[in-house]
Amino acid sequence: MKFPKTYTLKEISQITQTEFIGDKNFPVKGINEIHVVESGDVVFVDHPKYYDKALKSAATVILINKKVDCPKGKALLISDDPFRDFNRLSNYFKPFEPAKQSIATSAKIGKNTIIQPNVFIGNHVVIGDNCVIHANVTIYDNCVIGNHVTIHSGTILGADAFYYKNRPTGYDKLVSCGRVVIKDHVDIGANCTIDKGVTGDTTIGEGTKLDNLIQIAHDTVIGKKCLLASLTAVAGCTVIEDEVTIWGQCGIVSGITIGKKAVLMAQSGVSKSIEGGKVYWGSPVTELRDRQRELIAIRKLPELLKKIK
Amino acid sequence: MKFPKTYTLKEISQITQTEFIGDKNFPVKGINEIHVVESGDVVFVDHPKYYDKALKSAATVILINKKVDCPKGKALLISDDPFRDFNRLSNYFKPFEPAKQSIATSAKIGKNTIIQPNVFIGNHVVIGDNCVIHANVTIYDNCVIGNHVTIHSGTILGADAFYYKNRPTGYDKLVSCGRVVIKDHVDIGANCTIDKGVTGDTTIGEGTKLDNLIQIAHDTVIGKKCLLASLTAVAGCTVIEDEVTIWGQCGIVSGITIGKKAVLMAQSGVSKSIEGGKVYWGSPVTELRDRQRELIAIRKLPELLKKIK
Amino acid sequence: MKFPKTYTLKEISQITQTEFIGDKNFPVKGINEIHVVESGDVVFVDHPKYYDKALKSAATVILINKKVDCPKGKALLISDDPFRDFNRLSNYFKPFEPAKQSIATSAKIGKNTIIQPNVFIGNHVVIGDNCVIHANVTIYDNCVIGNHVTIHSGTILGADAFYYKNRPTGYDKLVSCGRVVIKDHVDIGANCTIDKGVTGDTTIGEGTKLDNLIQIAHDTVIGKKCLLASLTAVAGCTVIEDEVTIWGQCGIVSGITIGKKAVLMAQSGVSKSIEGGKVYWGSPVTELRDRQRELIAIRKLPELLKKIK
Repeated sequence: MKFPKTYTLKEISQITQTEFIGDKNFPVKGINEIHVVESGDVVFVDHPKYYDKALKSAATVILINKKVDCPKGKALLISDDPFRDFNRLSNYFKPFEPAKQSIATSAKIGKNTIIQPNVFIGNHVVIGDNCVIHANVTIYDNCVIGNHVTIHSGTILGADAFYYKNRPTGYDKLVSCGRVVIKDHVDIGANCTIDKGVTGDTTIGEGTKLDNLIQIAHDTVIGKKCLLASLTAVAGCTVIEDEVTIWGQCGIVSGITIGKKAVLMAQSGVSKSIEGGKVYWGSPVTELRDRQRELIAIRKLPELLKKIK
Repeated sequence: MKFPKTYTLKEISQITQTEFIGDKNFPVKGINEIHVVESGDVVFVDHPKYYDKALKSAATVILINKKVDCPKGKALLISDDPFRDFNRLSNYFKPFEPAKQSIATSAKIGKNTIIQPNVFIGNHVVIGDNCVIHANVTIYDNCVIGNHVTIHSGTILGADAFYYKNRPTGYDKLVSCGRVVIKDHVDIGANCTIDKGVTGDTTIGEGTKLDNLIQIAHDTVIGKKCLLASLTAVAGCTVIEDEVTIWGQCGIVSGITIGKKAVLMAQSGVSKSIEGGKVYWGSPVTELRDRQRELIAIRKLPELLKKIK
Repeated sequence: MKFPKTYTLKEISQITQTEFIGDKNFPVKGINEIHVVESGDVVFVDHPKYYDKALKSAATVILINKKVDCPKGKALLISDDPFRDFNRLSNYFKPFEPAKQSIATSAKIGKNTIIQPNVFIGNHVVIGDNCVIHANVTIYDNCVIGNHVTIHSGTILGADAFYYKNRPTGYDKLVSCGRVVIKDHVDIGANCTIDKGVTGDTTIGEGTKLDNLIQIAHDTVIGKKCLLASLTAVAGCTVIEDEVTIWGQCGIVSGITIGKKAVLMAQSGVSKSIEGGKVYWGSPVTELRDRQRELIAIRKLPELLKKIK
C-alpha cells in the first residue's frame, strides 16, 4: 500500500505511537511485506532471526523491537510490539468503512458492464468496460477489475488474508490493507475466493481463466493466460508464471514460484518452487513420468514383498 | 439445445455466416456435442484428427473447416473457424439477457415452493412444487428444477462451462447454451456449483443427494439415488450411473463413466471409466482391497530398503 | 435440542404417534444423538445391532422398533419406524419457518456489530457485540454467534446435516434441529459451510480461525485456538481438540478425535482418532517423519525393482 501522499518519519512515528531514529523529515511513502518492499516503504520485524534481512532490505524505514544501529540512508521506528504498530498503520490508512448500500457510490463501473442482481460492490472499487458481474458476487473495498472480465456468481474478491501472529492470548490478525487486482480478459468461475493482499496486491494476470471453487490467497500473483481448474488452492505470496495449467484439486504452498508453462496434473501438491515447461504429478509433485513409474512400482510392491518373504 | 423450431440449412448458414453444401431446405433442429448428437443436430469440428468422427456421427449437419465430400443424407457448413461460428449459433439462440430483477418474471415457480430471501432466479427458469430454495442461492437462466427439491444457501446452478480454445491471442470461450436439470427429490448442499451444459444438459438424477461445496461440471449426468460428499469435483461430460456413493474430496475426470452402485472412498481420484458394484480407493483408484495391500506394503518399504542395503 | 419445557412421556408419545411403555408422567426434556445423550433425552434406535447401546446409554427414553424389556428408571416409545417418528419430534419442536425478510425481526444483534449488505439472518439468531458479518453471508435459524467474531462473505452457517437413511423408496433425510454455535474471537473466511447439528450443536471454539472454502459437518466440535486452512473438510460428529493446526485440503472422517496441539500437513486424510502433540502427513496419515521416510523409499522403488529383475 502506498500512502495517499509522502509522510514524514515524525508523522509516521505519531501514527504508530513509536519512537523514531533518523531525520524527523525522512520521507515515508507506504508499507509492504519484506519480499516486495521498495525505497520509502516501512517494513516490520519482531524476531532477531529476521533483523538482518529487514535492515538490509530495500525498505528504508524499519519498524523493529530493538534499538539497533540505523543503517545509512534509512530510519528506524522502535516499538515493543512491531506487529501491533504495523497494524496501526493499516488501520489508519485503510480503516474498515461499513457499507452504506450494496453498490458503493464511490465505486467506478465502466461502459457496457453488466452488474446482475444481489451483487455487493465495496468502497472505491474500480471495474472496467464490458464486464459481466453475475448475481451474488461480493467485491470488497478497493478491488480493481479490468476490461472484458467475467465473474460468476458467489465469487468473493478481497476478503482478509489468513495471516495471524500466535500470542499467548490468542491469534492476532495482521490487518490486510492490500487489494485484489484482476487484469483484462480474465474469467473467474462460481464460488471462488481471492483474498486481498496484506499490504500489496493479489493479482490475476491478463487472459487467465479460473474454474469454480478456487482459493487464491493474499499477495499471490498469477501470470497471463493460465488455466486453473476447480477446487485448487494457491497459498499466499506465491508466483505462478505465465501460461501455467493447473488441473483440479491441486494445492500449492505459500512463497514459491511455479515456472512458465508448467502443467500440474489433478490432485497434485506443490511444496517447493518448480521449473516451467514440464508436466508434474503427485503430492508432493515429481515430473509426470517419474510419478507414473512410481505408481507402476507401487502396484507391484505387495507381490514383491510376498516373494521376498 | 434444440432450436425453437426447425430451421433450413440456408437459414443456419446465414446465422453462422458460412457457406453450405447440401439442400438449402435441409432441416436443422439444434446443436450438440459430438458424444450426444442426434439427427437434425449441428456438430462442429476443426481438427483433421476428428473429421471422420464428426462426419460419421449421428449429427446430420457438420460445421467444418475443410471442403470434404458430404456424407449421404447430411449437409455441411464450411467455415474457416468452426469454433467461432458454432458460438454464433449459441449467441443467436441463447443470447445473454441481463436480469431486470432478482426473480425473473419469466420464471415459473410451483405450488408450495419456498423461495428464501436474496435468491437470484434467472430468465425462463422452471421450479416445481414443494421445493425449498434457501437464501443467497443463484439460479441462472433456463435451469429446470423438479418437485420436492431442496437447495441450500450459496449454491450456484448454471454458471458457464469451463471450456476454452487455446488461440495465440488468448483463451477463447465456447459459449454455453445448455441447461442444468435437477430431477425430483434431489437435495443440494450449501455453496455447490453445478455448471450448465455447453449445448446439452447437466443433469442430477432423481433422489440424488449432494453435500456442500461440490463441483459438477458441464454436461455431466448423475444418475438416480447417488450420494456425493463434500468437496468432490466431477469434471465435464462424465456419466455417474445410479446409486453411486462418492465420499469427500474425490476428483473425477471428464468424459468417463462410473458404473452403477460403485463406491469411491474419500480423496479418491478417478481418471478412467470404472465398473459398477465395487469399492474403490486411492488416486488413481484401484479396488479397495488392492489399495489397502499397497498401503501395508508401503509402510514396510523403508525397512525393506534398509535390509536390502 | 432441549424442549422449551419438560414434557410427559404421554405427550411425547402423542407427538410421535407411538405406543409408550412406562409411567405416563415420565419426564422428557429433549432429543439427542447416541454419543451425547443425557438423562431426560430421547434417543432412537432401529437396528438390533444397536439396541443394547441405546438401551444402556444415558438417554432415559428409547424410541425403538421392538417391544423389549424396559430398563429400570427408563421409558420406551414403541414404533414401527423410529427414524420417521424421531423426525416427527424435530418437525414439531423446530418446524421450518420461512423467512419474512432478509434479517428476521426475532434475531438479536449486539452492540457495535456491523452487518454488511445482502446478508440473510434467520429466525431466533443471536449475534454478540463487536462482530463484522460481511456481505452475502447466510445465517440459518437459531445460530448463536459470540462477541468479536468476523464472518467473511459467502459463508453459510446452519445448513442441514448430510444425514440420510437408505430406504428402498429413496434416501430419507434425518431432520436437523440442532444449531451452529460460534464462540468469541472466531474468524471465519469466505465461502465456508458449517452445518447445524442434527440434534446438538456444531461448535467452533473460542479464538479459532478458519480460512476460506472450509466444510464443517453437523455436530462436530472444534476446540479453542485452532487454525484450519482452506478447502479442508471435517465430517460429522468429530472432535478437534484445542490448538490443533490443519493445513489446506485436509479431510477428516466422522466420529473421531484429533488430539490437542496435533498438526496436519496439507492434503492429509484422517480416518482414525489421532493423538495430540504430533505432526501428521499423508492419506491416511502417519507421523510426519514416517511419511517422509516412505516418500524417500517410494522414490527409490522403480530403481530397486529394476535391480531385482
